Amino acid sequence: MISKLIQEIEKKDAPIVVGLDPQLGFLPKHLMEQGIKEYGESLEAVAAAVFEFNKAIIDATYDLIPAVKPQVAMYEQFGVSGMVAYRETVEYAKSKGLVVIGDIKRGDIGSTSGAYAAGHIGTVQVGGKTFLPFDEDMVTVNPYLGSDGVKPFIDVCNKNDRGIFVLVKTSNPSSGEFQDQKIGEKTLYEMVGEKVAEWGADSMDGAYSNVGAVVGATYPEQGRVLRKLMPHTYILVPGYGAQGGKGEDLVDFFNEDGLGAIVNSSRGIIAAYTKSDYAKFGEKHFADASRQAVVDMLADIRGAIAAGK
Amino acid sequence: MISKLIQEIEKKDAPIVVGLDPQLGFLPKHLMEQGIKEYGESLEAVAAAVFEFNKAIIDATYDLIPAVKPQVAMYEQFGVSGMVAYRETVEYAKSKGLVVIGDIKRGDIGSTSGAYAAGHIGTVQVGGKTFLPFDEDMVTVNPYLGSDGVKPFIDVCNKNDRGIFVLVKTSNPSSGEFQDQKIGEKTLYEMVGEKVAEWGADSMDGAYSNVGAVVGATYPEQGRVLRKLMPHTYILVPGYGAQGGKGEDLVDFFNEDGLGAIVNSSRGIIAAYTKSDYAKFGEKHFADASRQAVVDMLADIRGAIAAGK
Repeated sequence: MISKLIQEIEKKDAPIVVGLDPQLGFLPKHLMEQGIKEYGESLEAVAAAVFEFNKAIIDATYDLIPAVKPQVAMYEQFGVSGMVAYRETVEYAKSKGLVVIGDIKRGDIGSTSGAYAAGHIGTVQVGGKTFLPFDEDMVTVNPYLGSDGVKPFIDVCNKNDRGIFVLVKTSNPSSGEFQDQKIGEKTLYEMVGEKVAEWGADSMDGAYSNVGAVVGATYPEQGRVLRKLMPHTYILVPGYGAQGGKGEDLVDFFNEDGLGAIVNSSRGIIAAYTKSDYAKFGEKHFADASRQAVVDMLADIRGAIAAGK
Repeated sequence: MISKLIQEIEKKDAPIVVGLDPQLGFLPKHLMEQGIKEYGESLEAVAAAVFEFNKAIIDATYDLIPAVKPQVAMYEQFGVSGMVAYRETVEYAKSKGLVVIGDIKRGDIGSTSGAYAAGHIGTVQVGGKTFLPFDEDMVTVNPYLGSDGVKPFIDVCNKNDRGIFVLVKTSNPSSGEFQDQKIGEKTLYEMVGEKVAEWGADSMDGAYSNVGAVVGATYPEQGRVLRKLMPHTYILVPGYGAQGGKGEDLVDFFNEDGLGAIVNSSRGIIAAYTKSDYAKFGEKHFADASRQAVVDMLADIRGAIAAGK
């Protein structure tokens, strides 16, 4: 799967992913009104608005980007209806040729991780029929439980040609509380990074592994260290834009082949219409604002990579 | 919420929780056949079987136990239909007076953890109406992202009188890979345990905090250390039974007041009918087998606590 993602990144010259994280506050009024008109004041109404919102953004950007990353929490918060919108979003994005990275951050004891892996990137057998319940191409995984919480995901990656990104150094302000602690000469995130490289060695797909890592754009120095520590690991980089990461911070997340990292922006793209820079598009044309924000993000990141070479 | 859980534990003299983790392999044939008859070979069929399975087990055990702990992965693996069964299970268990601990192990950056908290233990506002999307009483939380990944859950606990259990030392074989690493004089799990105690100080509900911890029955020595480190923290103890934990291993998870821990068994109870000890009940009477397994587990744990005093 990572080779497919790389192919799409190269084809579009776009090492970026759009985070589809539809918070209630971002949904344009006319989509909410339309949802409520159809379903009343209900979670179904929000879910319908969420899907229409995503669909418009995908339609406006899919030719420019290789992938989308729906954050499942933003759907799960709306209960079962939200999960319907999540499933529909995954399906619609794939129908447009996009790689879908489900930002699910799951991780549990072995048998339980196996169930998550089956439901998200694997298959479930019922009698003579096979189902792909959520059917993402790749998902994010939490490493706190160690190898036997991660391996069931890797087994499914190897079986079904899918991919994962394991949390190594997250983008949030308090990520250092545990992740930066020193264990002998190394930090915890370096130790997790080494494990990711080790796990990934059995899941190579071309020059890179189907086992990737998450390292926040907000921590460029740690990104530099981890880039060297995990040479064959693709890095998913959240934290660009709304969380404070800039193009220039990202240079060292890439390898010398110009590959090795894919930068996510969520609010900066999907809620662009709410920012002064894109206000001229207006709320009804939120998807055009998103397209312009993608164009601007690409210019920033391509420029930073070119300058960094 | 922890005071409500303690009240139920004391009323039933039962510091235990039944894990509702319905794997496909545990579902009795007649329930699967009934599901398939109604919905065809589909995820809906499995979901219907799962709910009937849980309902029968709840009906057969609710007078003996204070709480159930559905493991969401076992529902999520069946896609949206599985999440419907999860929601129905939560609702049915609550209708029988049980405290419901959603074993969701979520945890993300602040705004995302806020969405998980709203969807599972909080509320969502749509126009003039308020919804409780999944409506568990308590959930489990992963601490890898540090304070700002946990605090949004605590805020919702404080607002809506709910509870969480934060993963400290998990029950699985490889939990030590990161959790046992030494940071100066302490292990990572001790450092997380200290944080749990600190977070919990602002969420007291009687003698204990609404911020609890998860510590595996399979690690009794670590349980002893953590018990002392977090005197006001309730400990959710998975790993009893199928994972290898025994009653005698559990004594030191409890405080001298006989409280402070609640022991989970999943497969040992819900799949009891598949074990030789309970085979006499037969597959059709799986729920009676579960009841007997609860009675036996209670005798084991009450005996161990009495002997340990």
